[in-house]
Amino acid sequence: MPEISPEPVAVIGASGALGFGLAVRLALAGVQVAIGSRSEQRALETAERAAAVVPGGVFASHDNAGAVRAAGTVILSVPFRNQSETLANVRDALRAGQLLIDATVPLAAAVSGKATRMLGVWQGSAAQQALEMAPEGVRVVSALHTVSATSLSDLDHDLAQDVLVCGDSRADKREAAELIERIDGLRCVDCGRLEMARTTEALTALLIAVNSRYKVHAGIRITRLPERLWE
Amino acid sequence: MPEISPEPVAVIGASGALGFGLAVRLALAGVQVAIGSRSEQRALETAERAAAVVPGGVFASHDNAGAVRAAGTVILSVPFRNQSETLANVRDALRAGQLLIDATVPLAAAVSGKATRMLGVWQGSAAQQALEMAPEGVRVVSALHTVSATSLSDLDHDLAQDVLVCGDSRADKREAAELIERIDGLRCVDCGRLEMARTTEALTALLIAVNSRYKVHAGIRITRLPERLWE
Repeated sequence: MPEISPEPVAVIGASGALGFGLAVRLALAGVQVAIGSRSEQRALETAERAAAVVPGGVFASHDNAGAVRAAGTVILSVPFRNQSETLANVRDALRAGQLLIDATVPLAAAVSGKATRMLGVWQGSAAQQALEMAPEGVRVVSALHTVSATSLSDLDHDLAQDVLVCGDSRADKREAAELIERIDGLRCVDCGRLEMARTTEALTALLIAVNSRYKVHAGIRITRLPERLWE
Repeated sequence: MPEISPEPVAVIGASGALGFGLAVRLALAGVQVAIGSRSEQRALETAERAAAVVPGGVFASHDNAGAVRAAGTVILSVPFRNQSETLANVRDALRAGQLLIDATVPLAAAVSGKATRMLGVWQGSAAQQALEMAPEGVRVVSALHTVSATSLSDLDHDLAQDVLVCGDSRADKREAAELIERIDGLRCVDCGRLEMARTTEALTALLIAVNSRYKVHAGIRITRLPERLWE
């Protein structure tokens, strides 16, 4: 196990498949994880489940607002149908200066539609909705939509793929990339401003179609990039 | 040079950067290319330019409707602002059963906006607009939006990337893939129904942002796919 980082990272929605996968992979990389769930009981169960997967990992369990308070960086990994309510519930816990990595995907499945279709979000994307709902000064970056939850949770799976990162501040994107790249096999690529999240979010639906066609857990690679992406 | 295919492929908009790149790469792969342009004179100049790049290539030059008549498969590679007009102009030349590969991208640059932004197309995507405008029986497939025009035109550039193919018929997609994969280094991936083109088209804008950030001509790879994609 690598050395444990001093500041915990909150994973909001860690009981869900993507959140759980991120929690165990981050813990494996030596990051303390504040497991957030709507109920403290659910968070506790999830933390126990995560600790069984990564016995050396450091997990704390909280309700969502508690996880936000306990952490520096917050990863928001909830179903789209809960994103707005969750952000409203943790609004008082969020602090100016906190980094919020939004991984929400507005799949049509949120309203009983197909998982290969997207919902239109008035702000343009779930990430832009997060930016609008978060308190002033919270730094919002969009990432992690193309990484399969199943692949993350299976620690034997060699991820070997890119994470498409969008945001309006280069420094914020770099900070998110530094955290995400602690997970073995993930390389972060700067894909432009936060508004580009409408495309990176839609890639989830595209990969769901590809996965269904080929019975795989596919990811994305951007070709021909230089070696150093975040100097 | 590989053996020349019997039936020409029309490239509509071959005077443009993407169309020209496709024309020379296809010719290099032994495909006869019917170069289409709005004016026959422009098509002739483009065919001469292409023949200078691929001396053994077989190029014929036509106005757009003539190129459609001369060909089996038609690749539509025009700026979005010309797509509708071009389809109206070649409508009488298109025949039921013809395969139309739409490579049009509704970049906001078409209306003097940013190349990293998209236009909303009422039908959902340029490909769906093409399907609506083409005569009954023309088989529309969407592809080639993530392949850099510059990389195609530079024959020394190892493409080594995927082409995301969308369409409502698996057989039509396979036929498009067989043609496109004659170009060395391109692998076609079935990304679902034609409506998914709204996402694959948007990837052009994303790659333009990536290219601008990293000074490259990036492409896309889908990871973890099986070896045979079109059995």
